[in-house]
Amino acid sequence: MITRMSHFFLKTLREDPADAEVPSHRWLVRAGYIRRVAPGIYSWLPLGLRVLQKIEEIVREEMNAIGAQEVLFPALLPADPYKATNRWTDYGDNLFRLVDRKDADMLLGPTHEEMFTLMVKDQCSSYKDLPLALYQIQIKYRDEARPRAGILRGREFVMKDSYSFDMDKAGLDASYAEHRAAYIRIFDRLGFEYVIVQADSGAMGGSASEEFLAISPNGEDTFVRSPGGYAANVEAVRRPLAAEADASEVPAAEVHETPDSPTIDALVAQANALFPRADREWVAHDTLKNVLFNLRQPDGTVEALAIGLPGDRDVDSTRLEAAVSPAELEPFEETDFAKYPSLAKGYIGPAGLKAAGIRYLLDPEVVPGTAWLTGADKSGYHVINLVAGRDFDVEEHVDVAVLREGDPAPDGSGPLSLARGIEMGHIFQLGTKYADALGLKVLDADGKLQTVTMGSYGIGVSRAVAAVAEATCDEKGLCWPRAVAPFDVIVLATGKGDEIAQTAEKLAVDLDAAGVNVLLDDRKASPGVKFKDSEILGIPTSLVVGRALADGNVEIRDRKSGQARVVPVSDAVAEVLAEIGR
Amino acid sequence: MITRMSHFFLKTLREDPADAEVPSHRWLVRAGYIRRVAPGIYSWLPLGLRVLQKIEEIVREEMNAIGAQEVLFPALLPADPYKATNRWTDYGDNLFRLVDRKDADMLLGPTHEEMFTLMVKDQCSSYKDLPLALYQIQIKYRDEARPRAGILRGREFVMKDSYSFDMDKAGLDASYAEHRAAYIRIFDRLGFEYVIVQADSGAMGGSASEEFLAISPNGEDTFVRSPGGYAANVEAVRRPLAAEADASEVPAAEVHETPDSPTIDALVAQANALFPRADREWVAHDTLKNVLFNLRQPDGTVEALAIGLPGDRDVDSTRLEAAVSPAELEPFEETDFAKYPSLAKGYIGPAGLKAAGIRYLLDPEVVPGTAWLTGADKSGYHVINLVAGRDFDVEEHVDVAVLREGDPAPDGSGPLSLARGIEMGHIFQLGTKYADALGLKVLDADGKLQTVTMGSYGIGVSRAVAAVAEATCDEKGLCWPRAVAPFDVIVLATGKGDEIAQTAEKLAVDLDAAGVNVLLDDRKASPGVKFKDSEILGIPTSLVVGRALADGNVEIRDRKSGQARVVPVSDAVAEVLAEIGR
Repeated sequence: MITRMSHFFLKTLREDPADAEVPSHRWLVRAGYIRRVAPGIYSWLPLGLRVLQKIEEIVREEMNAIGAQEVLFPALLPADPYKATNRWTDYGDNLFRLVDRKDADMLLGPTHEEMFTLMVKDQCSSYKDLPLALYQIQIKYRDEARPRAGILRGREFVMKDSYSFDMDKAGLDASYAEHRAAYIRIFDRLGFEYVIVQADSGAMGGSASEEFLAISPNGEDTFVRSPGGYAANVEAVRRPLAAEADASEVPAAEVHETPDSPTIDALVAQANALFPRADREWVAHDTLKNVLFNLRQPDGTVEALAIGLPGDRDVDSTRLEAAVSPAELEPFEETDFAKYPSLAKGYIGPAGLKAAGIRYLLDPEVVPGTAWLTGADKSGYHVINLVAGRDFDVEEHVDVAVLREGDPAPDGSGPLSLARGIEMGHIFQLGTKYADALGLKVLDADGKLQTVTMGSYGIGVSRAVAAVAEATCDEKGLCWPRAVAPFDVIVLATGKGDEIAQTAEKLAVDLDAAGVNVLLDDRKASPGVKFKDSEILGIPTSLVVGRALADGNVEIRDRKSGQARVVPVSDAVAEVLAEIGR
Repeated sequence: MITRMSHFFLKTLREDPADAEVPSHRWLVRAGYIRRVAPGIYSWLPLGLRVLQKIEEIVREEMNAIGAQEVLFPALLPADPYKATNRWTDYGDNLFRLVDRKDADMLLGPTHEEMFTLMVKDQCSSYKDLPLALYQIQIKYRDEARPRAGILRGREFVMKDSYSFDMDKAGLDASYAEHRAAYIRIFDRLGFEYVIVQADSGAMGGSASEEFLAISPNGEDTFVRSPGGYAANVEAVRRPLAAEADASEVPAAEVHETPDSPTIDALVAQANALFPRADREWVAHDTLKNVLFNLRQPDGTVEALAIGLPGDRDVDSTRLEAAVSPAELEPFEETDFAKYPSLAKGYIGPAGLKAAGIRYLLDPEVVPGTAWLTGADKSGYHVINLVAGRDFDVEEHVDVAVLREGDPAPDGSGPLSLARGIEMGHIFQLGTKYADALGLKVLDADGKLQTVTMGSYGIGVSRAVAAVAEATCDEKGLCWPRAVAPFDVIVLATGKGDEIAQTAEKLAVDLDAAGVNVLLDDRKASPGVKFKDSEILGIPTSLVVGRALADGNVEIRDRKSGQARVVPVSDAVAEVLAEIGR
């Protein structure tokens, strides 16, 4: 069926939407693909829905190809299974909760681990029923604190989530590998540049975990790569512990007055002026910076937390958030200092933290035997030669420092480079967390009950619309890869006269008959308007029926390269078919 | 791709689910199509999802064929548009409401009139943009007081809802007619027996309105039909007012003691004993029964309401609920009587109601000049010869009596018969209700702003799965029409030996290659189990590879008729293709 722009529910906008932060958002709104309804909540207009459905179909085909079976869970769910796994609480404010007319607690599903686990528990009783992979393509809900960038991070979004069920780790590894291969096929077909990185398991619990990130400067995730093939989301990077040092020659710790030195730079300058080192200058890396946070647990309890790290590094809040999840970070305020008399703001040291009874996590570089210049727990004073393990306890480490270009890869595969990406997929060895919590066991070959081992695999389907748009758009508008374009070709009737209109109509009919998905711009509008709209819409191929028709010619334009070629009208259908690979 | 039962996520149940009230519910659960998650909330297993998707596709094709354009709205919606139209309140407890993390009121969409209206307002400005029809196939939510019969009346369900937008009534009539024709094609394709009836517009406001009902004794709706072609949901029937009578010969009203006569039967018996009529016996139809309710308005205010109707009729609560919607009925309790000293329970008459200031609605048979035996507002007393219009006021009529087999059709087309049905579709001339409330106007050809006229058209897509199942199942299980069956054919390998298994496999492969959707029962199970399961599942055609193979034959069975025929194995694929109409 030909879609005629004269009757198509579409209005392109000449202005950028006020709230558009990233190009994909700007163009998807301007080109009439999506419309905002509420923060993080969007409607799909006909063009956007076509792209969404095409991506869904690609995902469905590849899931079916690995033998995963499609099911569909409700989005509105009873609370009990989520209470059983603690996620009712752990999700905190991110969960949309409601109460029904009979006062039952309900929620809008953010993910469906519990439901899949219970469904398999209901239906499977024997190892003969496994391995099993189930999936759904479904609308999910998260009450994001900061929905952003249109459908890139929404509060209502479409996901494909699948789960594998196996008897043991070897089975899980095989299921995981199958999903990984299917994801590679899916993202290859979607046509954007992506990278597979090690991922933090976050709130999900469990073990092996990888993310598929669309490489994009506007992505929310930062990842690192090494020349030797290491790749990880910064949340998942675990710098190894530094080698312990020999501190036998380090003199006893010594307190110095350091007036007016609340910052690392000021401290280093003062140290060099007031108590210079014999061997070299003091540098920021010699200092031990102690940063305080409040940690709110899902149950509402709040406790202080200190991070100690070399003064030339900052705490990466994303990495720290991932490390403490499901607890959430809150600032450590003036009023909190008042609760701990042993802490001197700006001059916090390990001794003051210990006296305050605050949990103290150290950077992997702070290991026994290393000596530090740090706060002396008295305003205007610092201490030097404070040796870890000698002068203060080294109990817990955490790696939440901001990573830097050139940091060594944890696996020794060379210096890291940093880039940003959009999380498009996540594959994850859940293990037995949900099976344990919900009692999913089946009989093994010996007739014994065994807990089932699960994998979890997600793809952001609606996010993929934005990610593909983001990866492919240019300064003129959207520019879809053929696999997901809402139409294969747009036929433009540019110029006046019945012949042009009739030829455009006939070519559209012939292309449609050849199985091509055609958008025909039959509006009474200027060629300029039509060209501009066709560029904004981003249909890969245009067939222009205009002035050249006087010479028996039409023009085929490629949206991506901008290249045009003139072909005889009699060859137009064949040429378009060749162009679009039919 | 062949689906193999040995790996299929399916477990048929030998027992009926405890909560199954109707056959479709029983079989859809037993055959492994759906599973209950919470009251009125179901998961779709692979078989059920296939049927749901097939129905969706039929609906989508027919909507596209009339030029309706598909969009997709969020299910989670901001409250403001629904407050603007009052439905935030009018929906009462049927609306799932929630509050997000920023304390914004939100809801789960029960229908999307507001959102469609606003979307068109955003995109259309001129009569040139109309006529327009938009639709979506989407999950909707209603917090039903009594979810029942599985997916027949759920709280989360799939609907196709479409809306037409026209400049005037003539345009609306045309759009309505197009949708009506599309609905006929859809329901014809779905393959169940249905009837188109006049419908009450209920809470939706507006004018012309028809329902498509699947005829089913287990339906929740009652409809009437006449030999002359009248057909209406009982909620929509409006019996005409009776002709006014000449009461000039009726003597003055007269109060009689009628001890112990709280019921109509007791009253009639007493009347015949204590004050017999000269002309004939007293009958129930001579009495005027006054029934009290409390009416709770959506804003929470409650007022009493009295219905006066001939004693041989009862109030039909469904009809009354429809007539008073969006207000809701509550019982009139003992404590309510205490508030109105003029009312004598069991002996209520028009005078007592008037004295109490209670709104009094009369049946269409209670017209000026008719004389009645009714309560005298004093315990143990009734009054005779109480003439409507003479002795009590006739102000408002309402037709909410239970209709009876043989009642005359309101249009004079003969006696009514009653039957039950399941509401599958509703088409409805909304008019300007939503356009007025939300300011949807476009410029007409004269450059003047005109309010747009809308139509609303719904189909219960998930309900259709149940309705088709209900209409087609038999005592052995489900029995799908070909258009919606989850598979075209099930190939059963019955009996032992490699040859049977290999032949079944080969036939499945050949059928699959011919484009047939095949389920292959390759399990290690007895022929009895396989036959029984194939009957429960309801795949229209079975191809049985079993003992007959020794003679070079296989068997083709038709699920519906139960008929089987033996064909040579070499002809099997061609015979199956012919059987399934390929």
